[in-house]
Amino acid sequence: MADLTTLDDLFVRKLRYVYDAEQRLTKALPKLAESARSSVLKQAIETHQMETQTHVARLEQLFGILGTKSNADTDDAIKGLISAAGDMAGLHGDDAVRDAAIISAAQEAEHYEIAAYGTLRTWARLLGHGEGAQLLERTLEEEKKADQKLTEIAGALNLQAATSHAR
Amino acid sequence: MADLTTLDDLFVRKLRYVYDAEQRLTKALPKLAESARSSVLKQAIETHQMETQTHVARLEQLFGILGTKSNADTDDAIKGLISAAGDMAGLHGDDAVRDAAIISAAQEAEHYEIAAYGTLRTWARLLGHGEGAQLLERTLEEEKKADQKLTEIAGALNLQAATSHAR
Repeated sequence: MADLTTLDDLFVRKLRYVYDAEQRLTKALPKLAESARSSVLKQAIETHQMETQTHVARLEQLFGILGTKSNADTDDAIKGLISAAGDMAGLHGDDAVRDAAIISAAQEAEHYEIAAYGTLRTWARLLGHGEGAQLLERTLEEEKKADQKLTEIAGALNLQAATSHAR
Repeated sequence: MADLTTLDDLFVRKLRYVYDAEQRLTKALPKLAESARSSVLKQAIETHQMETQTHVARLEQLFGILGTKSNADTDDAIKGLISAAGDMAGLHGDDAVRDAAIISAAQEAEHYEIAAYGTLRTWARLLGHGEGAQLLERTLEEEKKADQKLTEIAGALNLQAATSHAR
């Protein structure tokens, strides 16, 4: 295990995990969108995939501000979350039920990112990285909105899924 | 991949993942508490470990109500989150910085659980499992409180961590 002497070290290390997470998501989200049956869900995932590319670019901008290389460190947490989402997307059965499963996994990944960006934004502020804190805050808000959008879509889809066996 | 015909199937499948997640957490949390340096953080993790045992028991009660066996399905998401937390707990360096790292990982796991229980509670309501929805709601509230507690502790610890290099 590497040494961590200051919160600045931890901040950069955590940024590298999130940088890895966002890169993995840019690859995983198109597959998830492809598996979705509802066109509304498909579009929401595609929109978030584009936002995710912006999040990658923002992190690169932040590494630049900090004068650190844009290196990624393997993020075990997102690997697990993406693997779980893949399991959900691979399920066979009723379309609405499968879409409900995809949303549940996507929201778990969103919540993970909300926690991670919340921590990073707080650390950036404490460390006096004003511009960095603003970049992280913008991504955090987009993650929260993406989660809310999924909750909205889930509202209609879950109802459809709950009654699917009666069709 | 197994078949999913109804939301009830998905509900039970998801319960089995969460059942696995809670069981893994009951084993992981004592190690995380041991790694924490702050006594307040240590105690908060220990308290949550006891709550986690209650969450396991509640899930078993729920399986009983549904007339299904209490089987666990490997939850890749929590495996990844616990592995990431282990990396954080294994870091060397300033005590406050390491504790800040532990809190960040613990909050990511909490957020994952909040998302999972939120989905399960919603599905239980839709499916007319009133008693089950109440059990899930109680756990969800405890997860949210545990997350808030960690945010409170992080407030003081982060400040300490931010100034640690100046000591």
